[in-house]
Amino acid sequence: MPSQEMTFRPIGFVRSPYSEQSGTPIQPVFGEDTEATVEIAPEYVDGLRDLVGFERIWLVLWFDRARPAKLRVTPYMDTVERGVFATRAPSRPNSIGLSCVRLLRIDGATLHIAGVDALDSTPVLDIKPYVPRFDAYPNSRAGWLDSDEVRARRGMRADERFDQALDTEK
Amino acid sequence: MPSQEMTFRPIGFVRSPYSEQSGTPIQPVFGEDTEATVEIAPEYVDGLRDLVGFERIWLVLWFDRARPAKLRVTPYMDTVERGVFATRAPSRPNSIGLSCVRLLRIDGATLHIAGVDALDSTPVLDIKPYVPRFDAYPNSRAGWLDSDEVRARRGMRADERFDQALDTEK
Repeated sequence: MPSQEMTFRPIGFVRSPYSEQSGTPIQPVFGEDTEATVEIAPEYVDGLRDLVGFERIWLVLWFDRARPAKLRVTPYMDTVERGVFATRAPSRPNSIGLSCVRLLRIDGATLHIAGVDALDSTPVLDIKPYVPRFDAYPNSRAGWLDSDEVRARRGMRADERFDQALDTEK
Repeated sequence: MPSQEMTFRPIGFVRSPYSEQSGTPIQPVFGEDTEATVEIAPEYVDGLRDLVGFERIWLVLWFDRARPAKLRVTPYMDTVERGVFATRAPSRPNSIGLSCVRLLRIDGATLHIAGVDALDSTPVLDIKPYVPRFDAYPNSRAGWLDSDEVRARRGMRADERFDQALDTEK
């Protein structure tokens, strides 16, 4: 398998009320009432045309403060270890996050959003429109996340388990 | 705004029947019958545990053969220019793609999938479970993609417009 590296630069940053992982909603759906913004770098603002009109957008994020990846993790919503690719945990081989948030309005370079699960100053790699025809499969089976026990854990907030700031080794 | 760079390495590669952009479905939903595989690098296979049981997965892809980004593009499904962040076009400031595909089965390091819109050997950056509670908003308004004219263009295949291979300037 060829080894390749690819380099990305943020197109902007999240401004959210969450400065540490503990207490942050683990998914946008659990932070529906939280308003936040995304500040887009001036050179990319022209790419935001026509985004108003989409009720929701995808934020592709870089979890810049996640702990180094582990291949087995105990997710916030569970009590047993799972393969990391079967979870949405932030500590992953490439720490890329995917958040579906509501777009409230756009003022110049500022996107006002609701439903945010990202720490303040999280780098944004990409923004895409949410398109139900491409993205919505409401009846899709969801493995371990479908168990009654897991489904009862709603409104979850994060704790420190994936938070690099609490590691003593840098 | 601070300038940061982040470097990612593929965790695997798509093996698909599509070797060039022209003729490739523009979204997984338009390639539902196409079976393909994702080959995961051996060092990441342990992270696939518990993924069986999810009907769908997200592939986070790197569009490694997309043309350099433009901030306004004419998407496959439209005839007028749109801001690139209001489209799913592959030529973007960070050429990251998002595909929701059906997971058929896993054999060791090989994921068998259906519904693929990626070229053969496209690098895979991340795999995440598709979770309807986090990801499915079937009634979400979809801006320009909601127009009757655009909705009539179903089953679209790509043409060469975002294909780097056809550029004379490198």
